[in-house]
Amino acid sequence: MSKEKEHTRISELGEFGLIDRLTKNIQLKNESTLKGVGDDAAVLNYGDKCVVFSTDLLTEGIHFNLMYVPLKHLGYKSVVVNLSDIFAMNAQPRQITVNIALSNKFSVEAVEELYSGIHLACEKYGIDLVGGDTTSSLTGLTISVSVLGEAAKDDLVYRSGAKEGDILCVSGDLGGAYMGLQLLERENEVFKVNDNMQPQLEGYDYILERQLKPETRPDVIAAFKKIGIKPTSMIDISDGLSSEIMHLCNGSKVGCRLDESKVPMDNQTKKMAEELNINPLVSALNGGEDYELLFTVSPEDYEKLKNDPDFTAIGEMVNESAGAHLIAAGGSEIPLQAQGWNHQK
Amino acid sequence: MSKEKEHTRISELGEFGLIDRLTKNIQLKNESTLKGVGDDAAVLNYGDKCVVFSTDLLTEGIHFNLMYVPLKHLGYKSVVVNLSDIFAMNAQPRQITVNIALSNKFSVEAVEELYSGIHLACEKYGIDLVGGDTTSSLTGLTISVSVLGEAAKDDLVYRSGAKEGDILCVSGDLGGAYMGLQLLERENEVFKVNDNMQPQLEGYDYILERQLKPETRPDVIAAFKKIGIKPTSMIDISDGLSSEIMHLCNGSKVGCRLDESKVPMDNQTKKMAEELNINPLVSALNGGEDYELLFTVSPEDYEKLKNDPDFTAIGEMVNESAGAHLIAAGGSEIPLQAQGWNHQK
Repeated sequence: MSKEKEHTRISELGEFGLIDRLTKNIQLKNESTLKGVGDDAAVLNYGDKCVVFSTDLLTEGIHFNLMYVPLKHLGYKSVVVNLSDIFAMNAQPRQITVNIALSNKFSVEAVEELYSGIHLACEKYGIDLVGGDTTSSLTGLTISVSVLGEAAKDDLVYRSGAKEGDILCVSGDLGGAYMGLQLLERENEVFKVNDNMQPQLEGYDYILERQLKPETRPDVIAAFKKIGIKPTSMIDISDGLSSEIMHLCNGSKVGCRLDESKVPMDNQTKKMAEELNINPLVSALNGGEDYELLFTVSPEDYEKLKNDPDFTAIGEMVNESAGAHLIAAGGSEIPLQAQGWNHQK
Repeated sequence: MSKEKEHTRISELGEFGLIDRLTKNIQLKNESTLKGVGDDAAVLNYGDKCVVFSTDLLTEGIHFNLMYVPLKHLGYKSVVVNLSDIFAMNAQPRQITVNIALSNKFSVEAVEELYSGIHLACEKYGIDLVGGDTTSSLTGLTISVSVLGEAAKDDLVYRSGAKEGDILCVSGDLGGAYMGLQLLERENEVFKVNDNMQPQLEGYDYILERQLKPETRPDVIAAFKKIGIKPTSMIDISDGLSSEIMHLCNGSKVGCRLDESKVPMDNQTKKMAEELNINPLVSALNGGEDYELLFTVSPEDYEKLKNDPDFTAIGEMVNESAGAHLIAAGGSEIPLQAQGWNHQK
């Protein structure tokens, strides 16, 4: 790296800018590649069914803090976040591979604890662990999971099918995982100052579970099938509602009006936000890690699911020229922004 | 991790012992999973063709040293090592995903340099880059590549089909990558003491390329097809000949007699070994990273390939009870041992 002339900081481009720069010139060469970079998963055609392929990387100190994240939970979550990408394609996950890089601070028992969470998630979601790589690391723990799933070609839902007039819906509630993280961070800071202090976590079991042991939503995919609808576009909420809406808008060439008052949030999320003097909406818009499904449906299909309490209509897709906005309580319109990660240090 | 009672060091089990402990209780649940953990790649059945799925993880300081490994070469190699696993199944690689974790020392241009190598390997081998994840790291660079390939079910070659009497063959020559690494390490040590010293690399272009920009062997797979043979078992040489032979023996329940005098090595490999006062055979047996294909064929099929100078018969598979041995020049028999990684620190 000593010979470099230019040094553009990655933070100048941001995550999405960097990915765009690295992948914009890719020309697909294989017949079996139906969809490459740019959705929750790639789509491949190997016969009767389509194969859906996705992957994620979790690094210690960035995605998790082993001071308060139990290894079993971490293993579980590392699988769940990948399955979520497959459900976001309206597909069924089937197999995963797990790569881990371990520093010498890990004992065999610690690795087994991590794997017990991986196996538990495989058990719960009916997934086969079919391979992987374990290796040394000079520093912390890194976990990379790849997942394969399947779907009939016509069942696949991309980020690109939303139309003007479609209803924007979300499953479950949002912001809980982020507020759970804030609580864990706060108690960890207290602990660092005085390690006799017991963490104050009572009454926040829901948001702690959202952070530490999130679930993904096969039931949502099953519900679509049962009531006979197919979303026009879909994505999972890993980076926060705001980013994900922007992905659907960009993918589908539409705009969006997101109704602030409709964004579903649990009482614990709101209570924690109040305690920490944060606007709870921020946790939903920019917090991320909810692993709920955000999707659009035609107004006709919306009629079929509107009575299910697990779904909330939170906005409407509009013409691309109108842009993507949050409509606040007083009627003011605030442009939505996509946030990826940025280097903190 | 503070509550742990037992602390078994990973080095007590070794890589293969750890993997065995983590995966021995897996029960496959999906019809589409034909082969899980335990070969170069998993095998999945999604229709007319089988999908072959493999993954690898490379970490800075363990798998590569950025003091002397150019980023473009690193990108290239990180793809090649994965493709090699697919060819080792007698299958064709088609798609990859690439996950990278980056510390803030990397500029956009440095990441582009890495990706230029990734793209070059995709171009050369006809592979589509279809997805991945880029993220921050608090420390060094981590690269995780996953690869999908395809094969007709009957064409797949596993580690498990070798029979007593089969001939053990290898493509190309061995030990070069390891001797290239020794040379680079030596010159790096010199440079650390005196950074005005120019590295002495002349006359060693072949072993340097074997280490820095290895290729994989689609031509071997093509040759099998052309001459109409199918190996009875196959594996790629990533950890060293000794380990890979043990994998074939264990997978196929056979023993092996490896003829020391037949192990193919390039003159540069031997010369460098002499210069460093190392037995060159050690680089072939335990060096690894050659990414050649090690396979067994029936004696009849061996007749069809024995005139191809790219293949060398190096031994014979024998009854399991006889074990796996290196037959040295004087006729003495030395038991082969499988080496995986062990934690260095």
